[in-house]
Amino acid sequence: MNAKVATSIYGPVQEDLQRVEDALERVKQVDGFPMLAKMLAHVLAGGGKRIRPAIALLAGKFGAYDGGLLVPLAASIELLHTATLVHDDVIDASPSRRGRDTANALFNNAASVMLGDFMFAHSAELIARTDNTDVVRLFARTLLAIAGGELHQDMSAYEYGQDTLTYFGRIEGKTASLFATSAEGGAMVAGCAPDRREALRQYGLNVGMAFQVVDDILDFAGDEAEMGKPIGSDLMQGTLTLPSLLLMDRYPKDNPIKRAFRTRKPKEQHVAEAVSMVRNSDILNESYAVARDFRERALASVRGLPADDARASLEAIADWTIERRT
Amino acid sequence: MNAKVATSIYGPVQEDLQRVEDALERVKQVDGFPMLAKMLAHVLAGGGKRIRPAIALLAGKFGAYDGGLLVPLAASIELLHTATLVHDDVIDASPSRRGRDTANALFNNAASVMLGDFMFAHSAELIARTDNTDVVRLFARTLLAIAGGELHQDMSAYEYGQDTLTYFGRIEGKTASLFATSAEGGAMVAGCAPDRREALRQYGLNVGMAFQVVDDILDFAGDEAEMGKPIGSDLMQGTLTLPSLLLMDRYPKDNPIKRAFRTRKPKEQHVAEAVSMVRNSDILNESYAVARDFRERALASVRGLPADDARASLEAIADWTIERRT
Repeated sequence: MNAKVATSIYGPVQEDLQRVEDALERVKQVDGFPMLAKMLAHVLAGGGKRIRPAIALLAGKFGAYDGGLLVPLAASIELLHTATLVHDDVIDASPSRRGRDTANALFNNAASVMLGDFMFAHSAELIARTDNTDVVRLFARTLLAIAGGELHQDMSAYEYGQDTLTYFGRIEGKTASLFATSAEGGAMVAGCAPDRREALRQYGLNVGMAFQVVDDILDFAGDEAEMGKPIGSDLMQGTLTLPSLLLMDRYPKDNPIKRAFRTRKPKEQHVAEAVSMVRNSDILNESYAVARDFRERALASVRGLPADDARASLEAIADWTIERRT
Repeated sequence: MNAKVATSIYGPVQEDLQRVEDALERVKQVDGFPMLAKMLAHVLAGGGKRIRPAIALLAGKFGAYDGGLLVPLAASIELLHTATLVHDDVIDASPSRRGRDTANALFNNAASVMLGDFMFAHSAELIARTDNTDVVRLFARTLLAIAGGELHQDMSAYEYGQDTLTYFGRIEGKTASLFATSAEGGAMVAGCAPDRREALRQYGLNVGMAFQVVDDILDFAGDEAEMGKPIGSDLMQGTLTLPSLLLMDRYPKDNPIKRAFRTRKPKEQHVAEAVSMVRNSDILNESYAVARDFRERALASVRGLPADDARASLEAIADWTIERRT
């Protein structure tokens, strides 16, 4: 998403998204710790899509919108998200993310663990400003879900006996739960009625699922230069995603993934073979059909909401999750 | 502190401390993640002193004591404390703590980072049960202070130009802030009036300072077998504490600490020499005088509170921080 696209689809919350950016800017200002300030500037660098904060603000438009509460909520979500990414990159020993060096690569693991904790603390501080302990509890449960999803991914690495149901459960925890919380949190802070709040939660959940399925497709289908990471990196890390699970389904007896995972040290040759088999089949089409199905569910969830420009933005975000190339 | 001593000094909150233990037990029950369950069982093993939860509960006795709110608060504090220890041990690559293997040594860094995050999430979930966003904010600020103190300790490792003022600031963040929050949090949840709440906060802060100064003394004076870690381990990690700062003060030109730190890889011989110089001087007496001074301030803070058995317990805890041998 380039800046122009973001402007058009985030329309009604564009100004408050700038206030979210300002709040993140304030988090970066730490006196006396030049190293921490440098790390924060790196991981919170502008130019991120800020898709979760946008969803939170847009959800708030369906209730009593109060920027004084919604902006801290949205900033808190982005900090929580970034903190989990920083810790994930330590856990996975990832050298890069979206074409940029990770914190653990640039600095070191120890500093990155602290950096993540520091952002968790700031996230908690911002969430407390909503003055709503239900929202705090929602966030705590989300962090549990994210940790559970990540944990599951790590514990099940290189295990090729997984099914798609396990996969959907894992990505719900790892990714979709925070999208759901972004939408539901915005609705809660704006005091939406329960049915509207539930509709927005379902929207967030399904957009998050679509988002992650497409992420996993792009790990096979994307352009390395645009993606800023090598194709097949999930398989290199022992993570089975929808396309690889479909490949396993079709070739249950012998396939390059089994060969790649057997030693828990995948060979590039086996991964490349798996990528090529996926690309030369209809697996990516089938995976996109699954992603589109989640998108449709997201759209259906908001169909009962007023057809205003906030709803149009939510719909545009749902479409973008499918259309994006990176 | 053995179990018998704990019973006598935690008297009025003994039963609710058992409920804190039960709450921690429930955190350990995670279905589907045997590895996580094993890690939680290890780091939350019973037999800990639970001094911070005890202080929180005791503080609650000076207001409208409600176990239904105070027990989650106290359990949340212990989880936050344990989570920070787990991440500290990753950051410092510590092989053992109090005679037991650390999580990172038993499992690995990646799993330990996740374990800490999982406990942060549970801590947040429990703190939200107090239904008090001021308490949530207090906790968030405390986590910022702890992260700041740890960060400062790491950034200033092997820098021998530090003074005692920097040291006190660092241990206030790293240790005393959570003691202060334990007492203040208990008072807040119990709805204490501002002056009482402030008195309890000051009590916690000063007990925490005394506790950490004695910790740092024991790293020179303690018994290796009782402590479960080698003497001089702070110096081995490049951390200057009160005794070593006093030694630097007395021998500004040439001393074994400078020699140990110059290469950022302390030699055991230089550290042993520094330990021996400290032990053969009045530096430990002087350090104990500082710790006792903090203890006195803690006692003075609670002097205006009713002279009941909760106050007697707080006083006994303050005394214990000085008398302990491990």
